[in-house]
Amino acid sequence: MFGKLLKHVRERCPLVHNITNYVTVNDCANILLACGGSPVMSDDVGEVEEITSICGGLVINTGTLNQRTIPAMLAAGKKANALRHPVVLDPVGAGASALRTKTALELLENVPFQVIRGNISEIKTLAQGSGTTQGVDADAADCVTEDTLAQSAAFVKAFAAKTGSVAAVTGAIDIVADGEKAYIIYNGHPMMSRITGTGCQLSAMTAAYITANPENVLEAAAASVCAMGVCGELAFERLGPLDGNASYRNYILDAVYRLDGETLERRAKYKIM
Amino acid sequence: MFGKLLKHVRERCPLVHNITNYVTVNDCANILLACGGSPVMSDDVGEVEEITSICGGLVINTGTLNQRTIPAMLAAGKKANALRHPVVLDPVGAGASALRTKTALELLENVPFQVIRGNISEIKTLAQGSGTTQGVDADAADCVTEDTLAQSAAFVKAFAAKTGSVAAVTGAIDIVADGEKAYIIYNGHPMMSRITGTGCQLSAMTAAYITANPENVLEAAAASVCAMGVCGELAFERLGPLDGNASYRNYILDAVYRLDGETLERRAKYKIM
Amino acid sequence: MFGKLLKHVRERCPLVHNITNYVTVNDCANILLACGGSPVMSDDVGEVEEITSICGGLVINTGTLNQRTIPAMLAAGKKANALRHPVVLDPVGAGASALRTKTALELLENVPFQVIRGNISEIKTLAQGSGTTQGVDADAADCVTEDTLAQSAAFVKAFAAKTGSVAAVTGAIDIVADGEKAYIIYNGHPMMSRITGTGCQLSAMTAAYITANPENVLEAAAASVCAMGVCGELAFERLGPLDGNASYRNYILDAVYRLDGETLERRAKYKIM
Repeated sequence: MFGKLLKHVRERCPLVHNITNYVTVNDCANILLACGGSPVMSDDVGEVEEITSICGGLVINTGTLNQRTIPAMLAAGKKANALRHPVVLDPVGAGASALRTKTALELLENVPFQVIRGNISEIKTLAQGSGTTQGVDADAADCVTEDTLAQSAAFVKAFAAKTGSVAAVTGAIDIVADGEKAYIIYNGHPMMSRITGTGCQLSAMTAAYITANPENVLEAAAASVCAMGVCGELAFERLGPLDGNASYRNYILDAVYRLDGETLERRAKYKIM
Repeated sequence: MFGKLLKHVRERCPLVHNITNYVTVNDCANILLACGGSPVMSDDVGEVEEITSICGGLVINTGTLNQRTIPAMLAAGKKANALRHPVVLDPVGAGASALRTKTALELLENVPFQVIRGNISEIKTLAQGSGTTQGVDADAADCVTEDTLAQSAAFVKAFAAKTGSVAAVTGAIDIVADGEKAYIIYNGHPMMSRITGTGCQLSAMTAAYITANPENVLEAAAASVCAMGVCGELAFERLGPLDGNASYRNYILDAVYRLDGETLERRAKYKIM
Repeated sequence: MFGKLLKHVRERCPLVHNITNYVTVNDCANILLACGGSPVMSDDVGEVEEITSICGGLVINTGTLNQRTIPAMLAAGKKANALRHPVVLDPVGAGASALRTKTALELLENVPFQVIRGNISEIKTLAQGSGTTQGVDADAADCVTEDTLAQSAAFVKAFAAKTGSVAAVTGAIDIVADGEKAYIIYNGHPMMSRITGTGCQLSAMTAAYITANPENVLEAAAASVCAMGVCGELAFERLGPLDGNASYRNYILDAVYRLDGETLERRAKYKIM
């Protein structure tokens, strides 16, 4: 299944509109090209509706949001909805400032999202309308572990049901769920947290996966999360004794570029709850 | 000839002012350093005239343009013209939104450009005042092939004559022309389209080439296009079985850093029409 | 001593708020992760006070400053001061435009900085209220050499005394001083100037070092400068015959990621004046 979804990305080459932060934007563009999609970045309210119209999907990422780009996020999201283009929300830093929390909540109210991807602290903030976030990383107290897994999966399912979205909560253990079904994903490597923007990249790639697979949004989001984790593992195996996080960043993108469906199927580690 | 032009870039170390997008800006800075130039990035209307005054050349790139940066593009362009600094236009996404098309046309009306570099769809948009662009990539229907080459070369020459610029239309086959003479360039590798920003990087490097070679703008632009293509080939030859587009990006920049005039002369593949 | 300071960064994992330019922001985030810290980027005046409140330190970098971000720099700086968080100023391009010089001086007047890091031209501009800067690089006439060292060290000490900051003036020879004591640092490699953003990266890492070592700001800043230089040397030693500035950039970050206190102590080359 995941292999076929990946193949669709490569065959259908989805064009994805990104309204995203300036920290990781280059990596987001390159991962879209690596996975088989194509990126367009645009954040001026004077053109985002047109730009999103020529694309197949949209990702809205709230990292380094500002007063100028927030209206563009809303306008693009609404337009994409009207055109039935899938939209991904990455609520970077929700909980870290009132502006980010408020913006993410406003986006949620105005734009039905097909997928919401964040760390557990960000998603808890959205679920509760408030929260604590340690900067742009998840708060340790929130982390998903085997002990809290049943509870966490129930929480993610409930959030997905409430928002009508697929929720992708990523961390040491990833949970990708709609209201009914949760993929619990064990791929990835802790060193991925030592690179900036693996989350942003995953959100961008997920937009490509769901745009290429509109009939299977939950599975496509789960496949994208598995693919990112598998590539984190493959890249880690490739590290030499002098390599650090810069080479690791490159190797992950390289692995996404090289990933085939057979490898994804074979290495995907997940269960369904 | 091309070897000498490259040597001038390394000897004269042109300082290039970039008003550019936030997606590929880091690569633009690094390619300028790699080729022997030096970059300054600045896009606030309150300083761009001063910044461009201390530089030797300017590149204006409309990717991720916004209401704040458009006036800065115009002000910097006019100032550079007044100082007789060469200016390069990279009309990223012209045709993809009315804002981009309008901005590019407004720049063309107000700022004589020494070089305009874009893909065929972008240049057709500028030539016609409208057009179709598949995001920031060229539309397949527009692509330059051997079959359409004579017609395409005539089109590029006519566009160059009309604008008084050297036009550099890049793709599988590149055409660099003024009103009289066209370089048809066969260097490069298809994988270059799988990295974000090779076009932006080429525009930045071209600004360095023409700034260091003001007496030979057409040849300098052609040399820059050949150099990028040659480096794309050298980088492709260096790829290992695990390398993907991230390593390829690095290898291209590395090749630009290492490129010498002798290699450029030997590997340049072009004809004149 | 330096080894212990490095160890503190890894143990205390300082969260650093960056208001910085869009050219080198990704590298700044990755070097913070490489050295053991954690980055948050945010530049909207509507959230920077909150964001800086959840961090341990702040770095303000004036590269690609604009009218929107300048008030955010001031607001964040004042808030960090009020919270007794250490703040680093990187006055990129001070002297290159009136806007940059004025902004840097306004920041200096309103925000006591624990560390000010720049090239000699930028620091001279701040000391004199005016200056000449060749773009964002130091003017050759200003460069610190063995011949001018005593005079330069006295200048940097005087500037540090006047501002109440530790001043870190980096170049071929680095000087890190408070009003009393100067570290003269000989680490580094000339090729570091062929990568964009090594200065910005150093400022970000320095914020991590002083945030993790608030009791030893001078030594922590000197340790950070030595660490960057040592990593520039280690990365240079790693270069293969095809490697250029892109690989060098990655190798420096990799070296920061791998650097341990023992290596830093052994390779640090400095004297005290």
